Amino acid sequence: MTAVSSNLPRADLQYTSDGRLRHLLTIEHLSPETLTRILDTAEGFIDFGHREIKKVPLLRGKTVVNLFFEDSTRTRTTFEIAAKRLSADVINLNAKRLSTSKGETVLDTVRNLEAMHTDLFVVRDSQSGSAYLIAQHVPEHVSIINAGDGRHAHPTQAMLDVFTIRQHRPDFHKLSVAIVGDILHSRVARSQIHALNILGVPDIRVVAPRTLLPTEVERLGVRACTDMREGLEDVDVVMMLRLQRERMQGSLIASEQEYFNLYGLTQEKLACAKPDALVMHPGPINRGLEIASDVADGEHSVILSQVTNGIAVRMSVMAILMGGKQRPEQ
Amino acid sequence: MTAVSSNLPRADLQYTSDGRLRHLLTIEHLSPETLTRILDTAEGFIDFGHREIKKVPLLRGKTVVNLFFEDSTRTRTTFEIAAKRLSADVINLNAKRLSTSKGETVLDTVRNLEAMHTDLFVVRDSQSGSAYLIAQHVPEHVSIINAGDGRHAHPTQAMLDVFTIRQHRPDFHKLSVAIVGDILHSRVARSQIHALNILGVPDIRVVAPRTLLPTEVERLGVRACTDMREGLEDVDVVMMLRLQRERMQGSLIASEQEYFNLYGLTQEKLACAKPDALVMHPGPINRGLEIASDVADGEHSVILSQVTNGIAVRMSVMAILMGGKQRPEQ
Amino acid sequence: MTAVSSNLPRADLQYTSDGRLRHLLTIEHLSPETLTRILDTAEGFIDFGHREIKKVPLLRGKTVVNLFFEDSTRTRTTFEIAAKRLSADVINLNAKRLSTSKGETVLDTVRNLEAMHTDLFVVRDSQSGSAYLIAQHVPEHVSIINAGDGRHAHPTQAMLDVFTIRQHRPDFHKLSVAIVGDILHSRVARSQIHALNILGVPDIRVVAPRTLLPTEVERLGVRACTDMREGLEDVDVVMMLRLQRERMQGSLIASEQEYFNLYGLTQEKLACAKPDALVMHPGPINRGLEIASDVADGEHSVILSQVTNGIAVRMSVMAILMGGKQRPEQ
Repeated sequence: MTAVSSNLPRADLQYTSDGRLRHLLTIEHLSPETLTRILDTAEGFIDFGHREIKKVPLLRGKTVVNLFFEDSTRTRTTFEIAAKRLSADVINLNAKRLSTSKGETVLDTVRNLEAMHTDLFVVRDSQSGSAYLIAQHVPEHVSIINAGDGRHAHPTQAMLDVFTIRQHRPDFHKLSVAIVGDILHSRVARSQIHALNILGVPDIRVVAPRTLLPTEVERLGVRACTDMREGLEDVDVVMMLRLQRERMQGSLIASEQEYFNLYGLTQEKLACAKPDALVMHPGPINRGLEIASDVADGEHSVILSQVTNGIAVRMSVMAILMGGKQRPEQ
Repeated sequence: MTAVSSNLPRADLQYTSDGRLRHLLTIEHLSPETLTRILDTAEGFIDFGHREIKKVPLLRGKTVVNLFFEDSTRTRTTFEIAAKRLSADVINLNAKRLSTSKGETVLDTVRNLEAMHTDLFVVRDSQSGSAYLIAQHVPEHVSIINAGDGRHAHPTQAMLDVFTIRQHRPDFHKLSVAIVGDILHSRVARSQIHALNILGVPDIRVVAPRTLLPTEVERLGVRACTDMREGLEDVDVVMMLRLQRERMQGSLIASEQEYFNLYGLTQEKLACAKPDALVMHPGPINRGLEIASDVADGEHSVILSQVTNGIAVRMSVMAILMGGKQRPEQ
Repeated sequence: MTAVSSNLPRADLQYTSDGRLRHLLTIEHLSPETLTRILDTAEGFIDFGHREIKKVPLLRGKTVVNLFFEDSTRTRTTFEIAAKRLSADVINLNAKRLSTSKGETVLDTVRNLEAMHTDLFVVRDSQSGSAYLIAQHVPEHVSIINAGDGRHAHPTQAMLDVFTIRQHRPDFHKLSVAIVGDILHSRVARSQIHALNILGVPDIRVVAPRTLLPTEVERLGVRACTDMREGLEDVDVVMMLRLQRERMQGSLIASEQEYFNLYGLTQEKLACAKPDALVMHPGPINRGLEIASDVADGEHSVILSQVTNGIAVRMSVMAILMGGKQRPEQ
């Protein structure tokens, strides 16, 4: 299995030499088989949430560390719930304090944690590349999940998004998907685009004002639209992005009101899409900024399904990374 | 079982259509049978704290979320211990950050959490009515415990108080009870009064300066006293309230010293009560403000028993809310 | 077994009347047999970190409270991991807020927690003596581990240090050990000195500028050196201390650069020690301040082994304190 091309050595990190998925750092360079395996395994955890006893012993005796250099209660909670339902022990670390207040480097912090025989790090950082840096230095028995690093990647979010699409539109090869919002700064968009491309979606559009589009965005395998109605025309899926108010310093958008007028998803704009189009959002939503309340809560919306699926997909990724791992006794 | 009168529709929330207790939001409108069931079930958890293995699998595979919009380490800890002894997975959320820093509404936060198939929310808020608001919007499989909302209610505190009284004075129909302190702002007092009334206590007195008594407090079924010695005369139980220094802005009390002189519980004032009167306090105590240290630590005090009983009562409430719940497989 | 001399009544606290270890507050006054038992029991937990399922039920149904009056994510994490691998329920408390924001005394806080039938408190405080104070007031069924109190003691750190030494140099009676750094303020050094003395190490040296040495330090059973090369000459073990920048106010050291020149451990200074000398550090390390990076990461260094051993030693102490404890049923 040659999952990655030879001129992208960093991606090798994600697979062991015998082709097993070891880390989940980015969707880029993953094989379609890997993505499908994550989706299929997640299926098995979906009805799990309805059981009387939502607990399986797959990660019993494993220690999962939520190593969050950037605060995100919401994302941390989803990983904590997923890990606990797999029977892992979970340690939550506000890593900002751990690493900076005592002058230790990030790698010292990680080396210390791995010396405690922890098994899986869920890493979140406002800096792009942190999860990669850590993955390059951990010993063989430790796996890393990137839970969002800067503008770079948020692979479990993209996987839960494509999982949700597949629940409603199982044939990726027939789909038109629009991703709307701050493409420039969005790790979510980047990971979504990779996942949709790898799974064979033929028509992927990104919709944003020119100031929020990366230069040469087409090289990612998408079509860029600055007009929302054109971007949504006849699409099967509308994936809204969250507008990061804190990133909107200066003049990237004229005003929130103007942004909503041009790119906020309303019933009227949604009418350009297919009549049964899905509306998605990674949450938390800014009601009245990037999406109108009646659309967020309306019949097209699968936003809460995304949340539900997020637990199943994270359980799936954890189970795959930890599964079948044999460690030699000393 | 008609637990609630028809002109109080909000209270219906607490029971399912077939009369099972689903949420615990307030003591008001609960039936005596419900209160007695909570107390009887708690009896079964009381010697539990002395076992070698303090763990039962009643909530195994359930996810309990401590959703605290108001910080309270102490109360959070009691619910966390109770839930873990029932084998639940526990997620602690400082909900302030979750909901406000990203512009999401409280209900969006809750909808997200319930989409993760969480089972029980323990809600604490400085705003009255939050637990009610949430309970009105959660799906059928989710239960809510109000862990204190503004001035409104703190039902598990009242239940552990009446549990502690029953340990020493099993016949509620013969009791005189005085509640002393800031009745006006106290959710604890409000819940205690409801519980004592429902359980048939014939003589309930509230003792406070006029500025700390609600207008028409007698309509709650109590006798108001502004004189402490008159209020304590021949009572079986003295329930002290905590003086919330942070709420004492302005001129509600003249000074802390004067408050202690008039309403602080001393051995000398306690002598007005029955010789074997119980002294109670919900904690944390302000030594020398609402209660003298020698009384708090003295032979009449059952304050630490209240803490112990608090775990058993919270285990009882959780077990009853979660018990016998059948959820259809998808 | 007479573990403590009669004129040191405080130390009696650590043993029950029948000679069982009940608390671990300080290494001082412990018997060599107790230390050896902790080390031997830790051996059993060492290969544990390599197992598929890192979990034993020794503390199942016990509640361990991490009661940290001083923030230390790192130390808290080691105790949390150790307790969870023993199957205990763990409650993390930022005790600062709990005790001070509501005007309760530390002992009130502890009494409340013990009333909840918690079993083991891991206490950390910037004040010397806190763990002692608490141990003097808890009921018979509660044990205390001192996880660092002011300048006084850090017994589990010293035990993991001697455990690490024993892995490489099993005969304590032949060793020369140098402890280098801020001896004056270091609870770690104090506990290390006691442990090495009790285990029979004949040559213990403390190396520091005169301003960072306690007066009459020789009474602890060590030799003081202000010259680093003399201090390291032919030693088997170099134990570096962390330089607490926050404690270096004023003029205790001339400058960080000068400190590193005189007392920072470099390859060149390390050459004074035996060729196979061990280099140790309690972490987190200040690279380039008290230790050069190439020494910290070099072949002599057992710093990461110390971290690994820290989990095993803490599991050992918890298992011994909780082991064979019988509590009468009510």
